[in-house]
Amino acid sequence: MAISMYDICIPVLTRGLTNMSGFLDKAAAYAEAKKFDSAVLAQLRLVPDMHPLSRQVQIACDTAKGAAGRLAQAEVPKHADTETTLTELKSRIAKTVDFVKSITPAQMQGAESREVELKFPSGTARFTGGSYLTDFVLPNFYFHSSMVYALLRSNGVELGKSDFLGAIQK
Amino acid sequence: MAISMYDICIPVLTRGLTNMSGFLDKAAAYAEAKKFDSAVLAQLRLVPDMHPLSRQVQIACDTAKGAAGRLAQAEVPKHADTETTLTELKSRIAKTVDFVKSITPAQMQGAESREVELKFPSGTARFTGGSYLTDFVLPNFYFHSSMVYALLRSNGVELGKSDFLGAIQK
Repeated sequence: MAISMYDICIPVLTRGLTNMSGFLDKAAAYAEAKKFDSAVLAQLRLVPDMHPLSRQVQIACDTAKGAAGRLAQAEVPKHADTETTLTELKSRIAKTVDFVKSITPAQMQGAESREVELKFPSGTARFTGGSYLTDFVLPNFYFHSSMVYALLRSNGVELGKSDFLGAIQK
Repeated sequence: MAISMYDICIPVLTRGLTNMSGFLDKAAAYAEAKKFDSAVLAQLRLVPDMHPLSRQVQIACDTAKGAAGRLAQAEVPKHADTETTLTELKSRIAKTVDFVKSITPAQMQGAESREVELKFPSGTARFTGGSYLTDFVLPNFYFHSSMVYALLRSNGVELGKSDFLGAIQK
């Protein structure tokens, strides 16, 4: 009795990315209603030494495409970190979703036991595919999308838990 | 090729709860160094109409114990939401960890296809055990623990990503 690596990775990340894109839609509508340049929102930071919203989106995207590619043994596309507007950030999310959704259940067969290596300034981390997904990818992805939510929510954009979770099954 | 419901639930939530308890340790040390009452930190809010830190911890804990209990068909213990200090919040996390860790792999057998019903003011949500875990429990748990992190980090407590993820496997 178990759940497939595909099911706990590909639709989950697709859903989380889509929800995050929805935060940006609400943010753009808020800026338009308040008549300010929405690009200002891309620069929001909780504190000066945390990443701005734009970087939070980029890291969430990179976490998702890195996971999909590494677990499926597919080449991970490179996306330059050049986005400065909400429209550009939505495009970044959209191309990440396109890549994540391109992965098939067949490519994820056996992913739970594949070795994954991540290089950090502090050293190299080695995971099995399963621990990479549960101990690194999912917490990291949700952390950064939560920071995007926190930045927008604390700056006037009307977001609620349903925006974060998306439509729940009934 | 798959991963067990136990593996993507019980150790994952235990780890996330333990990491969140670690944020509170750093918060308490910060308050002591700055000579203020650490209970002030339990009242932090990002904005007035978001839950305070204490409630964020309580919801993260309830999400974890609800998941462990519902998926394992074990009775979910009730914990009164009375905590006002960091020490009390750490105790709340500790008793949640104790319950989550009490669940065995045998109890989680077949959990992915068990029906789970959640009642919300807006109606009843029905999930399979698998979708409940991936679409509700994990994003909700990480959302609230990320809010705890954001609140402390933006109020001077020196937290980094390694506090959120915990020690990664090498």
